[in-house]
Amino acid sequence: MKKNPLKIAVIGGGSSYTPELIEGILVRQDHLPVRELVLVDVPMGAEKVSIIESLARRMAAKAGADIHIHATMDRPSAIRGADFVITQFRVGGLDARAKDESIPLKYDIIGQETTGPGGYAKALRTIPVILDICREIEELAPDAWLINFTNPSGIVTEAILNHTRVKALGLCNVPIGAKKDIAKALKVDFSRVQASFMGLNHMGYIYSATVDGVEVLPQLIEMFDDPPAGVREHLESMTDIIWPMPFLRSLGMLTSPYHRYYYRNRMMLEEEKAHMAEKGSRAMQVKAIEKELFEKYKSPHLCEKPKELEQRGGAYYSEAAISLIDAIYGDKGEIHTVNLQNRGTISNLPYNAVIEANAIIGAGGATPLVIGEMPTRVAGLVNEVKAYEQLAVKAAVEQDYDIALSAMLANPFINDYEVGKTILDELVEAHSPYLDYLKR
Amino acid sequence: MKKNPLKIAVIGGGSSYTPELIEGILVRQDHLPVRELVLVDVPMGAEKVSIIESLARRMAAKAGADIHIHATMDRPSAIRGADFVITQFRVGGLDARAKDESIPLKYDIIGQETTGPGGYAKALRTIPVILDICREIEELAPDAWLINFTNPSGIVTEAILNHTRVKALGLCNVPIGAKKDIAKALKVDFSRVQASFMGLNHMGYIYSATVDGVEVLPQLIEMFDDPPAGVREHLESMTDIIWPMPFLRSLGMLTSPYHRYYYRNRMMLEEEKAHMAEKGSRAMQVKAIEKELFEKYKSPHLCEKPKELEQRGGAYYSEAAISLIDAIYGDKGEIHTVNLQNRGTISNLPYNAVIEANAIIGAGGATPLVIGEMPTRVAGLVNEVKAYEQLAVKAAVEQDYDIALSAMLANPFINDYEVGKTILDELVEAHSPYLDYLKR
Amino acid sequence: MKKNPLKIAVIGGGSSYTPELIEGILVRQDHLPVRELVLVDVPMGAEKVSIIESLARRMAAKAGADIHIHATMDRPSAIRGADFVITQFRVGGLDARAKDESIPLKYDIIGQETTGPGGYAKALRTIPVILDICREIEELAPDAWLINFTNPSGIVTEAILNHTRVKALGLCNVPIGAKKDIAKALKVDFSRVQASFMGLNHMGYIYSATVDGVEVLPQLIEMFDDPPAGVREHLESMTDIIWPMPFLRSLGMLTSPYHRYYYRNRMMLEEEKAHMAEKGSRAMQVKAIEKELFEKYKSPHLCEKPKELEQRGGAYYSEAAISLIDAIYGDKGEIHTVNLQNRGTISNLPYNAVIEANAIIGAGGATPLVIGEMPTRVAGLVNEVKAYEQLAVKAAVEQDYDIALSAMLANPFINDYEVGKTILDELVEAHSPYLDYLKR
Amino acid sequence: MKKNPLKIAVIGGGSSYTPELIEGILVRQDHLPVRELVLVDVPMGAEKVSIIESLARRMAAKAGADIHIHATMDRPSAIRGADFVITQFRVGGLDARAKDESIPLKYDIIGQETTGPGGYAKALRTIPVILDICREIEELAPDAWLINFTNPSGIVTEAILNHTRVKALGLCNVPIGAKKDIAKALKVDFSRVQASFMGLNHMGYIYSATVDGVEVLPQLIEMFDDPPAGVREHLESMTDIIWPMPFLRSLGMLTSPYHRYYYRNRMMLEEEKAHMAEKGSRAMQVKAIEKELFEKYKSPHLCEKPKELEQRGGAYYSEAAISLIDAIYGDKGEIHTVNLQNRGTISNLPYNAVIEANAIIGAGGATPLVIGEMPTRVAGLVNEVKAYEQLAVKAAVEQDYDIALSAMLANPFINDYEVGKTILDELVEAHSPYLDYLKR
Repeated sequence: MKKNPLKIAVIGGGSSYTPELIEGILVRQDHLPVRELVLVDVPMGAEKVSIIESLARRMAAKAGADIHIHATMDRPSAIRGADFVITQFRVGGLDARAKDESIPLKYDIIGQETTGPGGYAKALRTIPVILDICREIEELAPDAWLINFTNPSGIVTEAILNHTRVKALGLCNVPIGAKKDIAKALKVDFSRVQASFMGLNHMGYIYSATVDGVEVLPQLIEMFDDPPAGVREHLESMTDIIWPMPFLRSLGMLTSPYHRYYYRNRMMLEEEKAHMAEKGSRAMQVKAIEKELFEKYKSPHLCEKPKELEQRGGAYYSEAAISLIDAIYGDKGEIHTVNLQNRGTISNLPYNAVIEANAIIGAGGATPLVIGEMPTRVAGLVNEVKAYEQLAVKAAVEQDYDIALSAMLANPFINDYEVGKTILDELVEAHSPYLDYLKR
Repeated sequence: MKKNPLKIAVIGGGSSYTPELIEGILVRQDHLPVRELVLVDVPMGAEKVSIIESLARRMAAKAGADIHIHATMDRPSAIRGADFVITQFRVGGLDARAKDESIPLKYDIIGQETTGPGGYAKALRTIPVILDICREIEELAPDAWLINFTNPSGIVTEAILNHTRVKALGLCNVPIGAKKDIAKALKVDFSRVQASFMGLNHMGYIYSATVDGVEVLPQLIEMFDDPPAGVREHLESMTDIIWPMPFLRSLGMLTSPYHRYYYRNRMMLEEEKAHMAEKGSRAMQVKAIEKELFEKYKSPHLCEKPKELEQRGGAYYSEAAISLIDAIYGDKGEIHTVNLQNRGTISNLPYNAVIEANAIIGAGGATPLVIGEMPTRVAGLVNEVKAYEQLAVKAAVEQDYDIALSAMLANPFINDYEVGKTILDELVEAHSPYLDYLKR
Repeated sequence: MKKNPLKIAVIGGGSSYTPELIEGILVRQDHLPVRELVLVDVPMGAEKVSIIESLARRMAAKAGADIHIHATMDRPSAIRGADFVITQFRVGGLDARAKDESIPLKYDIIGQETTGPGGYAKALRTIPVILDICREIEELAPDAWLINFTNPSGIVTEAILNHTRVKALGLCNVPIGAKKDIAKALKVDFSRVQASFMGLNHMGYIYSATVDGVEVLPQLIEMFDDPPAGVREHLESMTDIIWPMPFLRSLGMLTSPYHRYYYRNRMMLEEEKAHMAEKGSRAMQVKAIEKELFEKYKSPHLCEKPKELEQRGGAYYSEAAISLIDAIYGDKGEIHTVNLQNRGTISNLPYNAVIEANAIIGAGGATPLVIGEMPTRVAGLVNEVKAYEQLAVKAAVEQDYDIALSAMLANPFINDYEVGKTILDELVEAHSPYLDYLKR
Repeated sequence: MKKNPLKIAVIGGGSSYTPELIEGILVRQDHLPVRELVLVDVPMGAEKVSIIESLARRMAAKAGADIHIHATMDRPSAIRGADFVITQFRVGGLDARAKDESIPLKYDIIGQETTGPGGYAKALRTIPVILDICREIEELAPDAWLINFTNPSGIVTEAILNHTRVKALGLCNVPIGAKKDIAKALKVDFSRVQASFMGLNHMGYIYSATVDGVEVLPQLIEMFDDPPAGVREHLESMTDIIWPMPFLRSLGMLTSPYHRYYYRNRMMLEEEKAHMAEKGSRAMQVKAIEKELFEKYKSPHLCEKPKELEQRGGAYYSEAAISLIDAIYGDKGEIHTVNLQNRGTISNLPYNAVIEANAIIGAGGATPLVIGEMPTRVAGLVNEVKAYEQLAVKAAVEQDYDIALSAMLANPFINDYEVGKTILDELVEAHSPYLDYLKR
């Protein structure tokens, strides 16, 4: 069947990650015919998006690609008629992130961009905006696919899929990164590796890993037992920690990097506090990195993605996103790990919950592969986190302080009402006007 | 990874279908290295299996294949060390089938090989045998995959998967046949067609059909509205009936050929009665066809599958089975429609129920693609049939007449206790000694 | 706590059953203080309701009760401020029932007032009216309890509870009748007997029966084995049939009278056809009985419920209804068998399905007692009937012919599309204007 | 029906609580005819049980009750033929409890007898013993009811109901105490109050409270807003804390006393540490109280329950237990709050999970009242705690260290692997020989 060339809108187009997306599009020119790429941003990001626009044009020119690339502040015009909308915006920017990281820490609670109270505040800022975007998509591009990167990706996708009619998939670079790390640790080609994820975004357990279809998870787990250099770095990259063997043997699975916050909370808290004292928040470090990056981006001689971008922390984002678009457009039937509605995939999670799982991707979208019942040893934690996530969405959708408080108390990082309420109130205050809807 | 060449055991190797299997193996010689093929049968089938053995050897010789092919009555020796065990036997042979077809009909109830009381009697004869086979596999070839064709395939697979530790997949030629028919009706290449099945064996609803990933089910449904020749025959082949449009619009899906027995029961009963009066049972017709086939098979000049086999009614069995083995052996990641445990695939069927659904096939076996909740308009019937099937298995496993009676009464064809009990008792008597375990 | 005296509105107040209700109220005068009783009917029933009004007043006078009793055609005024609304109306009257009984029979399908196509047509006529009534209750008496008798009581209650905010309980005289029959068969006092029902209205299986808390179901079942006179009649009254022992031993439970239509469908069909040929429809017989009854009711000397009413077939309706009202008003904590939302009571039925089950009744309404998983031997049939019921409600609520057809095909009495569609179309035509909403 | 007089065996008969049980039996003499009461204990408790035996005999004599009361170390003889077995033993005694309370606290984790790592260690010590007892009941008193008090009551009952065939109910004094407190706070008679509990033992949320059937929960919640003396003490007794209003408004329910450990964990930890520093463990305080109590019990002049027992902390245990026995024996149909299998009572907890819920009690045992779906705001925590409990049972039943570790990590008090493993290992060591089965 003949297919039309594509229009892609990138919301948050001024992000420092965008050159990766551009690269991802350009290397697929032969079979993924993008005719128009619109970079949308808000006035606060006008300068950045303009820098990106110029860089993107240079990259396209160098690659000989005939793509109409332009930046705009006019979101509806960008969305109108789009085939794919990619959302990677950050409400409040890195300054807001700095607050998400530092406020909880004042009360001896992990301050983290996507989990705990920090991630919660980010969700509360993001959901109203994403729902606005979805209303526009429903009206102006009802057949478009929304590919969401914006963190906390699982919660944001939960809001989209349970409160709008938009076709959407949530995306994260963790699963693709884990597969890359597995391949490297086992020293086999990436194409021979498959891994199965069970759970939620930033809470995905790897319950199977295969090379050419043969199960290798037990070997992978045993590799954590005093790994040699050349292997250690890849294991560490996968889980951000070399787990002790009794832990892994008891769990029988591998973790995401974010599981450290749940299974080594006390240690991570000490680490975070030390870091904060020493170097300030991660947001501020990223801000410095970004500043440098954009200086580079400005150079009229740069016409490809600079190497430094990889240090930024978002490796494989582009690969995940553009290969997903490619799989939909090309009806590839590939397996990708995405955020979508449960619908029985994991039988002991709510039917409508958004989960992160392997799915077959084709022109019709994503169909998850059945996982069955989660083992009891993780079912409690995953259900708790999902309950928190569903309450977070409900609080934002119903703009209700009582629900917002119950979401905070449902978060596993918070085990004390007084602490939870204090942090919530301080975040609401600090994030004015974004969270004014929770004031009363 | 290097893989060893394969040993395949075919139980019921004297079946007239076996040449299709041989053909399927021979055309895949380059990538599916079969080194040994054992055709197992019972003394009653000694002559037939010997004919098949000779034919198979001639076929292999012609194809230049180095496969050790031999027939045996010694099932354990055939199973020992097998990589795949294919079961396609028929307990009691076609004479038993004739009883399954004729006894219910005496009481104005559909007499059919795989559904209703006839299929039930076949299940009751088959389950004890398949469980014996599975005990042997557990002991002698614990890593083997069992590919079951033996009808009623869904019930037999339910018995295997819920009562043994054998890795098994149930198979049927209906789904692959439907996809072939869809391709022909739409005049597109088979490779571009995908179809999604929901339900049970011989009760699979087609709820999605795509060409290159684009949904075409609504068009397919509308084609039933007075289809022209050249299309009509393919639609008819798919569902064995040209459904009236109000039916299909209300259903919103396509059916299997066996749905006629549920949705046009009265008509089918009249048809069957007329057929029986005119030509005797289908079993007796098949017996005649088989006689002729085996005459052909005997010919020392025949060294390929004869064309006449296709008329026999089992088109694509070989393709379904051998391509499934191929997908497992080659870790293909292809989608096949198989019988396996539900585990949440269809959320409104029991977790452990065996269903027929699309699944990704790889070296680790089959992982079903999530279907979600069946629509209410089919959930009642499918649940009723599944309840009957689970009771049928339970009756055979526990060898309990009361349960056997409740299974009969749970079958949708039976709506009268007196009729159900009469037929059950007559079948038990007629199928002595196979069903003696239900006498009391 | 002091409670106000009650206003009760009876919709369908001109029913021949109403004197039973009056009696039920009058015998509870001391603790159930009814101050106002409004009998609502439609113009077609004006004469009847006026006769009932006079009789009711005479009954109240004789009992020395100070109740304001009046008839009206003005439904909203009757509902306004009511504490209880009792619905016992019949859309289309007995003439419509006659069609429900005779039309299916023309096609060799059971013609029955509450089950099969006949009950379905009644549901389709009733649901639009009950939803109108509920809108009025929501507005004019939002705290009122609706006690629904109108058949098919389970389907009508399903419509109310899933499509309105009215507090409602569905009621049937079968469960109370069964308990009476059990007490009589065992020759113990009714007060010592408890019975547990599992399933749906007119499809309730008795899975436990106790005397003073001691299980007696096995004895009760064995009593069906050639029961002596003095017992036989009570067993027969309970199930409307003396079930053969193999049936009951296989089922392990007792049935309602309506199970005959499912488990002895062929026999019942023959019976019905013979009856119809001999005496015409049951509706016409009831019409004659009613005529006589109303002649009696007219007599100014009659000031109590006449004995003949019991023959009418609705024994214990009044007892069921008024004792239920009494249990709510008096916060009694008694167990009644009612129709209400499942909410997990039976784990293998949909969460929102209306079921018939034992429940604790108090001022807050009804809380069902957990039943758990239905046994497989009944789960299929009950799920099938519930699917039909949910489709029937959906067809009426969405006024959609396609859904109406799928409901008809989902009914276990119908196993042939042609038959089902023919009957549906004929019923829609015959019941004009009530079912005009399904014409297209 | 005539019933036989009862034999009751009390395992842990030397408990200081036993006089309450005796009293409970004696005040029900007229309708609960106990003929034999056997007090079972282990050699370590020989002196205590002998003191209790004498006191119990004096109490019975004073009450004019003809009960054969005797103490024994021979458990099987006590169980043989018992109608009720009450378990209230403490494996390892108060010295073990002192370790449960102090070891976690060393690592800044709540040390508590029934929740957290302390309760977990108690469960691990108790489960092997209770399963031994159940094997004896299965053999020697298969019709007996086991009434379990032994803490953690929910976990112990989970072990019994999922791993033995014993008929058992778990009991706790929290629900009855809460109802008493509600009555006092509202200044109404206890008999007019009903309360509905949702969740688990020591994790029961009060989601409804009624006086004469009228809902009063909202008023109760508002009473926490600066309650006057005379009310305050009863609210405090109910929840062990005066919850701030924003917490209660967000929760919309009332808590058990143990919820403080989950919702005010940090505060409770500080409190516990201060207490421990000041007064030593609660176990040691109880030990002192018990010493005094037993001194009192020894007095030959004491022939009733001494007032001081109430201070001990187990108020209403006797009332809960003996009134439950009374309700079973007398087929009362009363509502009690007990620990039993979920079976769908709470739809978002596992089917076989033991929960604490309201149930109708009669001769046949307990039937829970349907609760439906827990609200999201508590579903996460309750599922997490239940997962921990199920893992705890599994660890004890399978005697598997890996599972024991995963149970510890699943407990909400533990959010750091290192801390969890350290505490587990130290508990296993400290509780030798009871937990030697987890050594490796």
